Amino acid sequence: MDLVTVGTVAFDNIETPFGSQDKVVGGAATYISLAASYFTKKIGLVSVIGDDFSKSMLNELEGRSVDLRGLQIKEGEKSFFWAGRYHFDMNTRDTLDTQLNVLADFDPIVPPSYQNPSFLMLGNLAPAVQAKVLDQLESRPELVALDTMNFWMDSAMSELKEVMSRVDLLSINDEEARQLTGEHSLVRAARKILKMGPKYLVVKKGEHGALLFQDDRMFFAPAMPLEDIVDPTGAGDTFAGGMMGYLARTGSVSFPDLKRAIIVGSAMASFCCEAFGTQKLLELDHGKINERIAQFVDLVDMEAEVLEL
Amino acid sequence: MDLVTVGTVAFDNIETPFGSQDKVVGGAATYISLAASYFTKKIGLVSVIGDDFSKSMLNELEGRSVDLRGLQIKEGEKSFFWAGRYHFDMNTRDTLDTQLNVLADFDPIVPPSYQNPSFLMLGNLAPAVQAKVLDQLESRPELVALDTMNFWMDSAMSELKEVMSRVDLLSINDEEARQLTGEHSLVRAARKILKMGPKYLVVKKGEHGALLFQDDRMFFAPAMPLEDIVDPTGAGDTFAGGMMGYLARTGSVSFPDLKRAIIVGSAMASFCCEAFGTQKLLELDHGKINERIAQFVDLVDMEAEVLEL
Repeated sequence: MDLVTVGTVAFDNIETPFGSQDKVVGGAATYISLAASYFTKKIGLVSVIGDDFSKSMLNELEGRSVDLRGLQIKEGEKSFFWAGRYHFDMNTRDTLDTQLNVLADFDPIVPPSYQNPSFLMLGNLAPAVQAKVLDQLESRPELVALDTMNFWMDSAMSELKEVMSRVDLLSINDEEARQLTGEHSLVRAARKILKMGPKYLVVKKGEHGALLFQDDRMFFAPAMPLEDIVDPTGAGDTFAGGMMGYLARTGSVSFPDLKRAIIVGSAMASFCCEAFGTQKLLELDHGKINERIAQFVDLVDMEAEVLEL
Repeated sequence: MDLVTVGTVAFDNIETPFGSQDKVVGGAATYISLAASYFTKKIGLVSVIGDDFSKSMLNELEGRSVDLRGLQIKEGEKSFFWAGRYHFDMNTRDTLDTQLNVLADFDPIVPPSYQNPSFLMLGNLAPAVQAKVLDQLESRPELVALDTMNFWMDSAMSELKEVMSRVDLLSINDEEARQLTGEHSLVRAARKILKMGPKYLVVKKGEHGALLFQDDRMFFAPAMPLEDIVDPTGAGDTFAGGMMGYLARTGSVSFPDLKRAIIVGSAMASFCCEAFGTQKLLELDHGKINERIAQFVDLVDMEAEVLEL
């Protein structure tokens, strides 16, 4: 496999100040796999669903060459469910309901055909579950990326630190970087995190863009200011999927390729926000993606080879 | 004059989670003039102070060729005073005290030598006072920039809209752009604001950078992630001062020059945050400024002439 992803495959109820939709197909691994499918074709998915899950989404994924042998389907059980309400700023949200269902006792099984992936994306899940996926690999991938959230910092910090020590890239938001290190300055926070295991840190700032840190190097990618933000759900996962899909496509983890992967991830995330759930991610093609990437390049173009006094 | 500035010249008491200082010399016009003085030498300042104000800061400004004929000194009265406390995020703050003092009945007098400025910066003040400065000009400057804040949107919206209709560039933060237009999307907010008078809109987002809008064009400048943010007071004014100083230096208001002016403003603002009050702005030189500007260029450099799938 070029890319293996573990994460939730789920239903979401989403409320924003401008609209709402119920039982939208979502989950971190869904967004990651859909976004990555535009860049690489050998994708394996490790997750669990109930027998209530959308057959058409499973067909959609398989149609995009996402291998589902790692997706467990529990007969008579229900898929993971999340309900949330966004604030007026569309950058913060409250969780209204979480029903773990099949996720409660999820024991990930990595099929033999997935055990030597070039790239591995550990989507947001309990750190112990993420670690179980790492344990089942035969060979070390070129890059292992880990996404997590404040919930695990509050409830499972030691397991989180343990799994963090085994990965190459950590992806969290700015508040989580501050919580994880007790440092207000993201520069200081990054320095501490890069001593905890990961060689690369991606700080996601939602509508304010993303920062990449490696050693003493920094790169900043803006978010695209959008005409309409319909639903930011899954934008962070879509960002990760675009980034990992692009890296799997290039087969490189050089700093310049990581920068470009983050621009690609930002472009994919900007599409994600333009419709509810995964809808927009199903309608893209390379032409539309190239056009959006060109807008990102233009957005920060200073039109100055040398800007000096 | 190349650049005339109106705004406060004042004392601040500043508290941050990491330290505090009392009676720090500040005020919008102080920060603007100091920042601009690195780029252009014929600067006029319109403001008012009491006889309690710092003589050494007045000498400092005059030593930088800032003309003070427009600065009224009221004997027996006290200078404007503001006290504020920053939250842990260093991006938001509470006002603890405001003593208008000499500002209560400030009637700006624009000296004859200031009445034909190439560039005019209307720093944050009551819109009616900003309008009085415009009324006293003999000729239209190449560019008039207006800074304002939510306080005037709440208390003097009609005067604000009136003065807005007479300027070329509006500088506000993202929440204020949303408040002014009732639009969540900054793209939509910008479109509305560009119909209210200004040809250019600069949306300041503090630690998240700045956006420039003109017609359908957008440019994004990041903020520099800093090792230590000591005090963000005056960063917005320093940004404006760097931007206007750079424009006055080039004498141009082309879109590429506006972009570069915003990078220069962002660089100056990043210095401002590294010490309390104006301290850091007194210690710079072109070498240090060029080095910081180069870091900004590097921060968003995608190392890709063409990034295409």
